[in-house]
Amino acid sequence: MSSSDTQQHRARAQDRLSEALAQGSLADVRRILLKMEPADVAHLLASTPPRHRQVLWQMIEGELESEVLNELNPELRLEFLSGMEPSDLAQLAATLDDDDVADILQQLPDRVTFEVLDAMDQQDRSRLEQVMFYADDTAGGLMNTDTITIRADLTLDVVLRYLRRHEEIPEMTDNLIVVSRDDRYVGLLPLRTLLVSDPSHSVREMMETRQAPIPVEMPDDEVARQFERNDWVSAPVVDENGRLVGRITIDDVVDVIREDADHSLMSMAGMSEEEDTFAPILKTARRRTVWLAINLVTAITAASVINAFQGTIEKVVALAVLMPIVASMGGIAGTQTLTVLVRAIALGHIHQKNQLWLVQREAMVGLINGVIWAAVVAVAASLVFDDWMLGGVLAAAMVINLITAGVSGALLPLALERLRIDPALAGGVILTTVTDVVGFLAFLGLATAVYGT
Amino acid sequence: MSSSDTQQHRARAQDRLSEALAQGSLADVRRILLKMEPADVAHLLASTPPRHRQVLWQMIEGELESEVLNELNPELRLEFLSGMEPSDLAQLAATLDDDDVADILQQLPDRVTFEVLDAMDQQDRSRLEQVMFYADDTAGGLMNTDTITIRADLTLDVVLRYLRRHEEIPEMTDNLIVVSRDDRYVGLLPLRTLLVSDPSHSVREMMETRQAPIPVEMPDDEVARQFERNDWVSAPVVDENGRLVGRITIDDVVDVIREDADHSLMSMAGMSEEEDTFAPILKTARRRTVWLAINLVTAITAASVINAFQGTIEKVVALAVLMPIVASMGGIAGTQTLTVLVRAIALGHIHQKNQLWLVQREAMVGLINGVIWAAVVAVAASLVFDDWMLGGVLAAAMVINLITAGVSGALLPLALERLRIDPALAGGVILTTVTDVVGFLAFLGLATAVYGT
Repeated sequence: MSSSDTQQHRARAQDRLSEALAQGSLADVRRILLKMEPADVAHLLASTPPRHRQVLWQMIEGELESEVLNELNPELRLEFLSGMEPSDLAQLAATLDDDDVADILQQLPDRVTFEVLDAMDQQDRSRLEQVMFYADDTAGGLMNTDTITIRADLTLDVVLRYLRRHEEIPEMTDNLIVVSRDDRYVGLLPLRTLLVSDPSHSVREMMETRQAPIPVEMPDDEVARQFERNDWVSAPVVDENGRLVGRITIDDVVDVIREDADHSLMSMAGMSEEEDTFAPILKTARRRTVWLAINLVTAITAASVINAFQGTIEKVVALAVLMPIVASMGGIAGTQTLTVLVRAIALGHIHQKNQLWLVQREAMVGLINGVIWAAVVAVAASLVFDDWMLGGVLAAAMVINLITAGVSGALLPLALERLRIDPALAGGVILTTVTDVVGFLAFLGLATAVYGT
Repeated sequence: MSSSDTQQHRARAQDRLSEALAQGSLADVRRILLKMEPADVAHLLASTPPRHRQVLWQMIEGELESEVLNELNPELRLEFLSGMEPSDLAQLAATLDDDDVADILQQLPDRVTFEVLDAMDQQDRSRLEQVMFYADDTAGGLMNTDTITIRADLTLDVVLRYLRRHEEIPEMTDNLIVVSRDDRYVGLLPLRTLLVSDPSHSVREMMETRQAPIPVEMPDDEVARQFERNDWVSAPVVDENGRLVGRITIDDVVDVIREDADHSLMSMAGMSEEEDTFAPILKTARRRTVWLAINLVTAITAASVINAFQGTIEKVVALAVLMPIVASMGGIAGTQTLTVLVRAIALGHIHQKNQLWLVQREAMVGLINGVIWAAVVAVAASLVFDDWMLGGVLAAAMVINLITAGVSGALLPLALERLRIDPALAGGVILTTVTDVVGFLAFLGLATAVYGT
């Protein structure tokens, strides 16, 4: 087996669906859809262009609808939900996880949110309001309230009998949460421990107290780092008084990890991690146009630097030929440094004491690679244009620009981070402006000094 | 609490460590280190520049050493391990997870690997050889062999008593794996089910058979997608005959997800996702230089296009001023398309039937944004240089280049993927070459047609 059966199976289902859609045989489409897993339907919707997507969505009903919504990426989910009635939304909400419903409601207009909350039963509403109280990029926004709690003074035997009275234990339950009489977090009793221990022991004897609970205000990326570092499946969440308010499970954390990692990638091209691959033409054009406008400012800034040296270029046209090399090598070197820093910041690798070392290293790396490639390019240019002066100017400009690229590629994200501006989003544009301007200025400036105007 | 206590606590420990290191009081360093969690020590090593890093590593001994190694990123881990004796490695290996040891051994020179395997006891060796048999980017390379298996004809009561005979149940065990007499995978018995069900039921009655096992050859990114889609904590792995060979747990899958997402980000800047943030100067310079060399070829190609139009530039120097705008806007637009496609491919959103739609959309988006910004820039340029012909040439070149950018930004990754070349790595360079060459060619070519040489 070179690839997976499941994958092939899914691809086949998709092919049959596409054919059925193309032929307009909606009965076939419905039949195939109903046999698919919700996660696969969500994946299918995400990879279908707009027109067919709407057709597909309209054929998904009842329980499958809420299960599919639960699996969809946030942008698509919001698109589908915006078209629904508040009463249908309230019904749907009852079948989704608290944290997902909270996310959805926070994205909808306030008016709709209130209508949906009104249409819910008392219990659902109060549980939900608890989660919605917290920002969705904090532990509170990630958590669910489906905890199973026990007291420390019980024996394991009693715990086992208590569990048996449950219809079911929530998914991703690897620990029972031990709390005090006033609901303060005390420790965890892993199911793994419960199952192998002598039932006459007490919870207090067997519970683990090493795992610190997660404060409800902790940012979601820090929650993700804690999960990754400690290999948790679930973790208890406490409020500022140490009272248990819910628990976070690894499936939601995996989404945070995926989104954070995608965030760096997409932001560096001026897009959002929630960007829908198959967004319609006009929506796509509108979103991208802002980024182009911002980069146009960069390009015009660079052009106006060149503009100042028209006289020199008229005299030595070879400058026009070579100047993009200086700018582009600077841009490439700077982007490398910037990317390393953006990732390091996302991973929490950067702190006060190690920043200076990084900036210094990047300056040295810029110097070394600048000298190497400046030498190569300068010799080649000197031979082609039969002008060793030109080669010298080119080499000097490249070294200057590569050192600038290294230093600014390292300093920029650190400065932006401190100003609470997303370095992945803003870093690239500012960096390119710097390397373009310094590159053209150094090259054409030195040339003017050497050749005169 | 604006930030997390844990985070602050860790930052404080790091500050105290840095001070102790700076003052050379190694006794203090050791004392602080021994109080830290292994995952935090690993994080500390990853965020420490080289000189201090070596000092720190030498102070970590015994059990902590193997626990820290287990948490380190692969590049750093390999660096530390390369300095160790095979007999120490063998001892270490006994304390690490099979899949991690297999990864490590596969990276070491063959000679060292054999020595390490020789120094192991029989049981460890044969278990390990089973895992090492599979490539480390497949399910087989990800799996561990610490499964708890049961037969379908047992009653839950017998299963409970069987479990109690275990010293402990492996971490991340959410299901017991049901196998037939000849070790074929039959189904899963969730601990959640075991704990709430009537003990007189049989495993067969209560087990789940819906979750398909993972074929041992499945690529790791597909394994990760399955885990994400189905919210699994662990999953059984079977060989081509349906025999259970191990299980994969979510902690290892999270690492795959993180690495895959980082891969796209880092590759687009020509680096590896395993890149060590605090690699020494020479190592960093050497790695980055290759990427600069490749991009230099792009820059020189672009320069040689300009070179062909020296005559036209001499006549109209404004062309030299404006030409970077055409190339850079193309590069930006193309990078946006490329990034969307790279992510979509990583998420498995792209298949045969939806590719054409995407390419068409990107062409249309390029046309729309091309026309908008071409108009703006062309009017501005015409006014600045008092030459409406120049504005027209600029506008036409920009529209041509933005459509080219959209189409090639979409086609390139699709083509590279089919050729089994990493689109994240190769896409950007080729794309920039295309947008630079087409940009300069269109702009200077049209200008030559209009102004003559």
